[in-house]
Amino acid sequence: MIKIEGKLEKVVVEADELKNHIGNIVQIHGSIYKIRKMSDFAFVLLRTKREIVQCIYTKEISEFPLEELEEESCVIVSAYVQEESRSKTGYDLKIKNINVLSAPEASSPIVINNKFVDTSIEKLLDFRPITLRNEKERAIFKIQEGIVDGIREFLKKERFTEIRTPKIVYAGAEGGANIFRLEYFGRNAYLAQSPQFYKQMMVGVYERVFEIAPVYRAEKHDTSRHLNEYTSVDFEMGYINSFEEIMQTETMMLRYTFQYLEKNYEPEIKLLKINLPFVHEIPAVKFTEAKELIAKEYHKEITDFDDFEPEEEKLLCRWIKERTGSDFVFVTGYPSKKRPFYAMENKENREETLSFDLLFRGLEITTGGQRIHSYREQIEKMKRRDMDIEQFESYLMMHKYGMPPHGGLGLGLERFTSKLLEQENVRFSTLFPRDINRLVP
Amino acid sequence: MIKIEGKLEKVVVEADELKNHIGNIVQIHGSIYKIRKMSDFAFVLLRTKREIVQCIYTKEISEFPLEELEEESCVIVSAYVQEESRSKTGYDLKIKNINVLSAPEASSPIVINNKFVDTSIEKLLDFRPITLRNEKERAIFKIQEGIVDGIREFLKKERFTEIRTPKIVYAGAEGGANIFRLEYFGRNAYLAQSPQFYKQMMVGVYERVFEIAPVYRAEKHDTSRHLNEYTSVDFEMGYINSFEEIMQTETMMLRYTFQYLEKNYEPEIKLLKINLPFVHEIPAVKFTEAKELIAKEYHKEITDFDDFEPEEEKLLCRWIKERTGSDFVFVTGYPSKKRPFYAMENKENREETLSFDLLFRGLEITTGGQRIHSYREQIEKMKRRDMDIEQFESYLMMHKYGMPPHGGLGLGLERFTSKLLEQENVRFSTLFPRDINRLVP
Repeated sequence: MIKIEGKLEKVVVEADELKNHIGNIVQIHGSIYKIRKMSDFAFVLLRTKREIVQCIYTKEISEFPLEELEEESCVIVSAYVQEESRSKTGYDLKIKNINVLSAPEASSPIVINNKFVDTSIEKLLDFRPITLRNEKERAIFKIQEGIVDGIREFLKKERFTEIRTPKIVYAGAEGGANIFRLEYFGRNAYLAQSPQFYKQMMVGVYERVFEIAPVYRAEKHDTSRHLNEYTSVDFEMGYINSFEEIMQTETMMLRYTFQYLEKNYEPEIKLLKINLPFVHEIPAVKFTEAKELIAKEYHKEITDFDDFEPEEEKLLCRWIKERTGSDFVFVTGYPSKKRPFYAMENKENREETLSFDLLFRGLEITTGGQRIHSYREQIEKMKRRDMDIEQFESYLMMHKYGMPPHGGLGLGLERFTSKLLEQENVRFSTLFPRDINRLVP
Repeated sequence: MIKIEGKLEKVVVEADELKNHIGNIVQIHGSIYKIRKMSDFAFVLLRTKREIVQCIYTKEISEFPLEELEEESCVIVSAYVQEESRSKTGYDLKIKNINVLSAPEASSPIVINNKFVDTSIEKLLDFRPITLRNEKERAIFKIQEGIVDGIREFLKKERFTEIRTPKIVYAGAEGGANIFRLEYFGRNAYLAQSPQFYKQMMVGVYERVFEIAPVYRAEKHDTSRHLNEYTSVDFEMGYINSFEEIMQTETMMLRYTFQYLEKNYEPEIKLLKINLPFVHEIPAVKFTEAKELIAKEYHKEITDFDDFEPEEEKLLCRWIKERTGSDFVFVTGYPSKKRPFYAMENKENREETLSFDLLFRGLEITTGGQRIHSYREQIEKMKRRDMDIEQFESYLMMHKYGMPPHGGLGLGLERFTSKLLEQENVRFSTLFPRDINRLVP
């Protein structure tokens, strides 16, 4: 029997610690990202956990031939941290020696170490395990990590409890045909379109809950904004006075998240030239008014009275941006027939729900609203819709045995990230996208 | 157009703020958890986000008949915070008035407001939306939240990047028949058994990564320790010198997590009487030695030379606990034939892998090890196993274009939670369990 101690001997230094070692020889590890040969020396860029570290190969100091270095080799570098006032970092990192831990079998068929990966989106995604090694590509998903952390920190501060609910479910929450079916020990099961039922149940337990997890939509649309598996940031809160409280909470959450990014992700913000929106307040327009406004302002004929066309979302955002400066706009009061059975209706106009979407730079990123909490009201609405009430017995249990007024929202993480980064396609902000044509890698 | 401001007017106070309002009348909301009638007054327990708050109904102060109060009603209580030195909190909360926001349609068929829910596990789970409202039941999942937060905080401190990888996959990572099949637009797809392939790919990008997400095993076993959907805490780290580094990192992670719980989850630790293990170092025994040891010490005949039986895991833990005081034990050097194709073999004994399991209080909660990083070595091993190499082209891309030595682990969150809480069944630590018989709620 041996004993595993809870400590790691650390001999290498981290990229952001180099400045504390000026005048010393240090060891640092990473992948050789790029070798740039100059007349009598070479820049050797080392890809570390978060930073690309510039090392210098020079004949005076380096004790091996430059040819021994190969891009995408994994190495431990011994280097002299030489004070250098002309350098941005305050030092030059001069390579003395290297220890090659592993070398690639072949060179990447795609150039990954330029400013950006210059290829088609298909190839970018086909070679995802490699193209993600590009400095900008990987920065996208550091930002995404930061968005999630910012949101989580905000929600915890607001006393939400984080939950984990099943993705294999017995019934779809959102209705419609876009649901994946699964063989489950001889029975039919489905992949969750949203954690809707479960997060509502958990409001009865913790009052405020959130979940950040995958959801599944069997969308056949092959568009720049659809994914078949995406990350949904869901929260649900009890004891609300109105559905506006949900929008207020989202406004606070967005503001907090952008501040969090500004504070903790400066290198990636600079690298990706991210234009962080300032969120003080967000305009809100009613769905019907927005429809009319777009028709009038942009001379567009209304063809679908119950929903937005993608073009209309873009035009509305343009109009709002020009008038108010806001990158965001809430649209409220969606028609009842377009919203799920659990949506609460406006008591003064049953055709309309107490619901909203949030549009960001031309794209819907959030759907939310108040839910029905009264058992009788929910049963009646389900009957009006000819739904099989028995199938939803375990869902309706919470209504039956007592639920506070409540509501919440779901925010699509990849859409949000891609709009923040002003990308043309949501796939650019998805690590390994799933769409009607893509299941690999 | 209206403007949604990023703020919420707050009139109610939170349970943990009451002590700052002594001498005042406050409003507080929650569900009426329990009404306990005494001779001339009543205790009214209010379930709030995290605390059960004791209020007092007395004829002198309360301005309404007690009969208006109903368990599981959602209410806003106006109450006088009266200084009371004999009370643990330093005050009594005397109800003046209530505003009933919603009332249940029926009384719960199961008593949920006693010290624990006294029913069968089947009923406990059938009525999950209601039984989770029990004080102890919901405390379990606060602890689980704390475990995840502690782990996340530790891993971030150690410079791991959090990732989100797809759960709809083109091939199983772990092999075997226990994989769920899915119809994916006319093709076969599967539910991920683990994020193995993706976390390895991401080591090539960020060096250290982790993911906390659902995984799927189509296990037909109906046992106290199997779930068909569970939460896997996965991390993977590059530039390791040995597979022991992974065990060291896990030891550090466990110690940190228990300290995190102690600091942030005291109320739940007390309520559930949790016996937090102290983790300084963890004993490690080789698989073959452990097998022999159990056979010798407990006079058990070895029937399976390649794997543990559940009984053997329990006996090994008992032996370790008696000899060393440790609640944990690493078992190392599992046979190659029982480990997946990506497991690195011991160069001195090819029959054995550089892998480990971690057992906690009689149950395996972690599997980990070093992975093959050399393209040629991986291809050779796959050929020896008669695997279809072409199918794994996108996985092998990382090996081909350069990977550091690396390894990692997966920890089953529900198993870990249930053993920490000394429960007999992993379902007690699963919010909405999925097993061969259960898909609802």
